[in-house]
Amino acid sequence: MKRLKHPKYTGILAASAVALAGLSAVSATAQTAPVPGGLVHDAEFQRLWEQNGDRWAEEDKEVAAKLAELEARFGKKPNIIHILWDDTRYGSVGHRLLTDITGYDAPNIEQMAAEGASFTRMYTEPSCTPTRVAAATGRLAVRSGMVFPIFPIHRMGLPGSEVTIAEVVDDTYHTGFFEKAHFGDQEEGYVTNQGWDEAIFSLYNQFAGQMFTEDAENTGYTTAYNEDGYDKKYFFDDTFRPLEWIWTVEGTEGGEVREFSTPKTFADYQDANARMWERTKEFVVKHADSDKPFMLQWWPNVFDLADEDAVRPFTTQNGTASAESIKRMDAKIGELFALLEEQGIAENTIVIAMADNGPMAHVWPETGQNGFFRGGKNDVTEGGIRVPAFIKWPGVIEPGTVIGDMIHVSDLFNTFARITGRYDQIPTDRIIDGIDQTALFVNGDTHGRRDYVFTYKGAQLGSVVKQQFKRHFSLGGGGLAGAEFFDIYKDPREEHPLMAEFLWAWAQFDHIVERHTALIGEYPHTPVARGEPYTSIVRLEDQ
Amino acid sequence: MKRLKHPKYTGILAASAVALAGLSAVSATAQTAPVPGGLVHDAEFQRLWEQNGDRWAEEDKEVAAKLAELEARFGKKPNIIHILWDDTRYGSVGHRLLTDITGYDAPNIEQMAAEGASFTRMYTEPSCTPTRVAAATGRLAVRSGMVFPIFPIHRMGLPGSEVTIAEVVDDTYHTGFFEKAHFGDQEEGYVTNQGWDEAIFSLYNQFAGQMFTEDAENTGYTTAYNEDGYDKKYFFDDTFRPLEWIWTVEGTEGGEVREFSTPKTFADYQDANARMWERTKEFVVKHADSDKPFMLQWWPNVFDLADEDAVRPFTTQNGTASAESIKRMDAKIGELFALLEEQGIAENTIVIAMADNGPMAHVWPETGQNGFFRGGKNDVTEGGIRVPAFIKWPGVIEPGTVIGDMIHVSDLFNTFARITGRYDQIPTDRIIDGIDQTALFVNGDTHGRRDYVFTYKGAQLGSVVKQQFKRHFSLGGGGLAGAEFFDIYKDPREEHPLMAEFLWAWAQFDHIVERHTALIGEYPHTPVARGEPYTSIVRLEDQ
Repeated sequence: MKRLKHPKYTGILAASAVALAGLSAVSATAQTAPVPGGLVHDAEFQRLWEQNGDRWAEEDKEVAAKLAELEARFGKKPNIIHILWDDTRYGSVGHRLLTDITGYDAPNIEQMAAEGASFTRMYTEPSCTPTRVAAATGRLAVRSGMVFPIFPIHRMGLPGSEVTIAEVVDDTYHTGFFEKAHFGDQEEGYVTNQGWDEAIFSLYNQFAGQMFTEDAENTGYTTAYNEDGYDKKYFFDDTFRPLEWIWTVEGTEGGEVREFSTPKTFADYQDANARMWERTKEFVVKHADSDKPFMLQWWPNVFDLADEDAVRPFTTQNGTASAESIKRMDAKIGELFALLEEQGIAENTIVIAMADNGPMAHVWPETGQNGFFRGGKNDVTEGGIRVPAFIKWPGVIEPGTVIGDMIHVSDLFNTFARITGRYDQIPTDRIIDGIDQTALFVNGDTHGRRDYVFTYKGAQLGSVVKQQFKRHFSLGGGGLAGAEFFDIYKDPREEHPLMAEFLWAWAQFDHIVERHTALIGEYPHTPVARGEPYTSIVRLEDQ
Repeated sequence: MKRLKHPKYTGILAASAVALAGLSAVSATAQTAPVPGGLVHDAEFQRLWEQNGDRWAEEDKEVAAKLAELEARFGKKPNIIHILWDDTRYGSVGHRLLTDITGYDAPNIEQMAAEGASFTRMYTEPSCTPTRVAAATGRLAVRSGMVFPIFPIHRMGLPGSEVTIAEVVDDTYHTGFFEKAHFGDQEEGYVTNQGWDEAIFSLYNQFAGQMFTEDAENTGYTTAYNEDGYDKKYFFDDTFRPLEWIWTVEGTEGGEVREFSTPKTFADYQDANARMWERTKEFVVKHADSDKPFMLQWWPNVFDLADEDAVRPFTTQNGTASAESIKRMDAKIGELFALLEEQGIAENTIVIAMADNGPMAHVWPETGQNGFFRGGKNDVTEGGIRVPAFIKWPGVIEPGTVIGDMIHVSDLFNTFARITGRYDQIPTDRIIDGIDQTALFVNGDTHGRRDYVFTYKGAQLGSVVKQQFKRHFSLGGGGLAGAEFFDIYKDPREEHPLMAEFLWAWAQFDHIVERHTALIGEYPHTPVARGEPYTSIVRLEDQ
């Protein structure tokens, strides 16, 4: 393992091994096998492996046998569908014990939860672009400079050197990507240049698709963008508003990339979404009978800011915009499961559905709601980074179960790589934050392998979770320890800084951050891609 | 119906009927039957009955047929067990999707929820004595002056003129009461003078039983009570500390009442609880085979403030005192269900388990935790008055269901009266706040008959809930509408006062309160019983 050659890092590891030796026998780790795939994991996982690796390696053999048995039964590896949508808080979908308090009516997600498992500690990054990058690359978004949501026209995007899960599975799977990528406007970051066989994907988010339209004022949101929305008598800079931008493009791997839609009206936006949804279903049907399984990233555009007549913004009286949008997405999820049944592939398809970050709590109540947690999108409190997440894997996951282990969105990268038999394709020349959680999927609750999460707020480390403890670096609050240490099990809203626990946790968290930072010194972040936007895209008027 | 003769009240009703007439046809209520039992319900229910009474009367016929069918099958009416414990917030027990975030490990309650139904909107009064009085009498505690928790030596208690559910069922059921009554120290309010056949009951709460002991300092709580706990050099009033008090007594209906336990040590307290638990189970066994069904109020003493060795207070590190106490109670609930099976009466026994009010949120974290809601015990925010509640009724209630209708603890009075066939024994000379929810129990979700709750903070009206809207009268907060109007579905923590909705809701809530107040003018509150405490109790030393 490359990182062990670094004197500073190995020094820290050696020192910690000595410290551990004084406490228990777990430091007798000479026999522990190297981490699977020889990956460069963060130091925190390395320490977990030192303590649990022998046991986990044994478990992995059983998991491999189980996967082989399934493959033999179905004649191919499982299809994988990852549904990732926006801005939804834990507890607002999935079960009426939660949603009756405050939440959405989403019967198909409830059914999915009843037939599969619900995660209670699925962590994400605090906003769209970072979470999507972490899911695609298995790396915290800070490692590729994708630290905030990219908007028109940021002239930045996902670096081509990142290796996505589509590149990992490569030709062993049919890969499809539909709707919201949010990887930015750089050619090297286009989804079709990042391994997906077939894709229709947005460069930016869905709000851009809705707000920058000619009838934007009808949505009740921004009116300061379009030509008629403002008084121009004091304006003499025609370049300030980004008029010539592109929202969504389509293409095939390495092929021509064509503009798919840049809405001029809200009806355009809705039409584009309707067409993408049809294409998503076509992808499933097309590959259902193939000898090769498929992997589908269906990351739908949620939320709509207006209703279907395109002219009336949702009122909060009848349910917020988010309530209406979730209802629409939920109906599609119902359609999707019906389609899997109809195609006879439901039994061999893993479906994971989850939100990409917490609710827009700071524009209450239109697109966010309060719940168990404090804060929402863009916060590193639990409200920003802990999301509803469900998995259905018939025959493997017991119906109606609950998984309480910590899991991070980046873990899906490793887990999909494991399930698809492509773990050896994960790059070993960079830090991989994802952890293989296949054992958790197969063996269920308490079989997870993560007890920590690093969360960045932009480019700065915002908080670290370890077990039920959490340390904040950006909450403010004065006095000794300030608003830093929390027990998120007893105090999920992070309102009561700990008094006693920080006495032992302070140095421990310092060490966690030191080790994390030392590894960045060895494997520096990749700079975000920057340059001319939209290169090689064939505009709609030229098609 | 007596109240309709009151000119002021009928005037309001007539005026509102006129107002309704302008909106819909529902005011054509001449055909609506009188409310069942001819009860004096609050005006709010009368209005609901005017709109829904014909339909509900039809439903009641089906419900009666169902109850008759069950009675024919089992040869007697169902046994009823009401478990009511302290200070626990919604979501902290019952399902891992909630408890994994923050809550307690209570596998037997989880099993009860899985085999029965969970209520998402069970309302109580905000503290112990009021909720217990409301459960026993079907009336808000303010109506009998029992507006706050009674402590040693308050010299007050439940008025003898109150009619409890035990008096309603009278000799048609074996009635038993065990553990925490908290009805005060007046003889007329003793549980055995309020209709129960057999009882061991505390006059005050369980904390009194634990804190006023000789080794109280060992619990980490009050040390200022007992002889050795303070420096007395400036003390010259020997009457300030209530040294001669009584905690728990036992007896049979109308018979001699004997002191059961007034703990001098924490071990005494634990011993008393252990003996009461044995007697509770004996009650069940004794009446299992009887021709007559039984009704058991098992209102256990929760929480313990120290562990079983009686000398070490719980640490928050290993789980709060509440976590440990819930675990102990949960084990007893498991024992109870096993006993019902063993005795062959599980099928014909209704069990309802619930908390009496929200958590002790203001002494975080020892005995309370944050959740969906703001506030806790003694608050009229949802955190104080909305509790975990579960019902198991085999063969009637579908396993694993969720009931989202509003229900108030006082409704159990009417519902038990209905199920036991004793609705005609409910007094009609006073306001009854409880509503018969038998249809909700039998037909499930959406069959409830309550859409409002009045909550008192002491003797003052604190808040009114109507549908998803809520108006506060005591939160403070300045400006137009201040912190008054909330949508508790979108904002369950009551943090965002409504701007738009109060424009129409203001007058509506004013009318609700006017009607409520007018009825009090006609049926004034009964004064709380006051006088010498402990009369007729045979002290332990005299037994």
